Amino acid sequence: MKIMRKEGKSIGLVPTMGYLHEGHLSLVRAAKKHNDVAVMSVFVNPLQFGPNDDLAKYPRDFKRDEEKARLAGVDVLFYPSEKEIYPSGYSTYVEVKGLGDTLCGSSRPGHFKGVTTIVAKLFGIVKPDMAYFGQKDVQQAAIIKKMTEDLNMGIEIKIMPIVREKDGLAMSSRNIYLSETERKDASILHQSLSTAESMVNQGEKDARKIIKAMELLIRQKPSVKIDYISIVDKRFLKEVSSISGEVLIALAVFIGKTRLIDNIAIDPAAVKTEKSFARKA
Amino acid sequence: MKIMRKEGKSIGLVPTMGYLHEGHLSLVRAAKKHNDVAVMSVFVNPLQFGPNDDLAKYPRDFKRDEEKARLAGVDVLFYPSEKEIYPSGYSTYVEVKGLGDTLCGSSRPGHFKGVTTIVAKLFGIVKPDMAYFGQKDVQQAAIIKKMTEDLNMGIEIKIMPIVREKDGLAMSSRNIYLSETERKDASILHQSLSTAESMVNQGEKDARKIIKAMELLIRQKPSVKIDYISIVDKRFLKEVSSISGEVLIALAVFIGKTRLIDNIAIDPAAVKTEKSFARKA
Repeated sequence: MKIMRKEGKSIGLVPTMGYLHEGHLSLVRAAKKHNDVAVMSVFVNPLQFGPNDDLAKYPRDFKRDEEKARLAGVDVLFYPSEKEIYPSGYSTYVEVKGLGDTLCGSSRPGHFKGVTTIVAKLFGIVKPDMAYFGQKDVQQAAIIKKMTEDLNMGIEIKIMPIVREKDGLAMSSRNIYLSETERKDASILHQSLSTAESMVNQGEKDARKIIKAMELLIRQKPSVKIDYISIVDKRFLKEVSSISGEVLIALAVFIGKTRLIDNIAIDPAAVKTEKSFARKA
Repeated sequence: MKIMRKEGKSIGLVPTMGYLHEGHLSLVRAAKKHNDVAVMSVFVNPLQFGPNDDLAKYPRDFKRDEEKARLAGVDVLFYPSEKEIYPSGYSTYVEVKGLGDTLCGSSRPGHFKGVTTIVAKLFGIVKPDMAYFGQKDVQQAAIIKKMTEDLNMGIEIKIMPIVREKDGLAMSSRNIYLSETERKDASILHQSLSTAESMVNQGEKDARKIIKAMELLIRQKPSVKIDYISIVDKRFLKEVSSISGEVLIALAVFIGKTRLIDNIAIDPAAVKTEKSFARKA
């Protein structure tokens, strides 16, 4: 890796936990486009799983990942063992305060500390110029961006759009857990976000009303249990009661034992502008 | 800095809090010797000072530092403002667990978290190949080395010997705080460490006995209040009751309001070897 850097080649890193899907591959394509070399890491990071999380059963299939990565044009695939990453006596942790207090941070204590620590390590190992993360894990991406800025890492964090299935379900390695019925029910997540978006576009500013409407919709699917639905400002990820600036509408649910997340970014100002254009036209 | 790196020049970094003395300058000379470029940072890091510490009165004299750095051959002097380093909303922290539990870590909670955070930032900004720290701050050096390894930073940490005044007092920017009498009394620190060393060389293995002897010696100077005297293994910095392998004998005292630290590394095996050579000769 170091040699490539000395040769003046730019490196784009796509950190993953494997079991690759189109979401990951869209990150690879962006990394290829912006850099000379695309590096992908595949590592299921135990540090970001809580005691009740799905570490043991998290889907793993390196042969499949290797093939998908090769086809997508990954130049270097980094597939370390747990012992390489966390040797005996490992004891250093990186933490971003504040941004991890809401959303998944409150549901999964310690999760983001695990994420920032592994990403700091991957950045140390690969020394990329740019690193690619998906908008689906929006809080993770925001926290990593903040870490990179705060620690002066000089790495550009690129956050790429959510890739969805035909029925709107955000792609996730965890979708494999879903039974046929659960998989059908899961489309309600994106539907509820679309409903929320429509409400904002129609001028609704009351966060509570929007969340209520989403809850009513999701509760029509008895297999889906809401972990949280939250509307937060885009920059600090703090809950808002009234929508004025750019917000994220984010949710997490359990379908059976499977925890899924999704979100949508909305800028009411942009909506207004579109409307005023429409009026002018 | 980036340009230098691209030119293939190696960078040695000497992070300091300024008010430079011979200890700092010995680090610069080592950095010059091992690298193409020597960078020094001068930044009094508020994050590593506790509420009762001496942040406000910590000695600062940048003109003097600039001159000393220039004469010592520093190529780049980095002298950031507090706002550059910790802009509003700063929220990322790096912490090494375990190594900070003993010695100064127990006397100064949060201190080493402040140290690792600023050093991680300086490493991000300067991107050195090697970084230089003094053996006087032995726990700091061990913690930084551990951080660098754990986070795969790829930076070589060089720990350079303590530089002492003629009477044995370890050089420190804080020595300036001492009154004439206090300054004289301060030589007891090194004397007590030399006493400890002699005891080990003469075969004493009982840590408590050694500490007791040091305490008795230091108490002869009523201006000197012991914060801690501790004998720890060199690698994990855990207290030992009996000296078998390599140890550090470390102490911290208050002389008036001035907190001073000092230490000595002892390897009883090396002592034995010398003796057996002596016998052979």
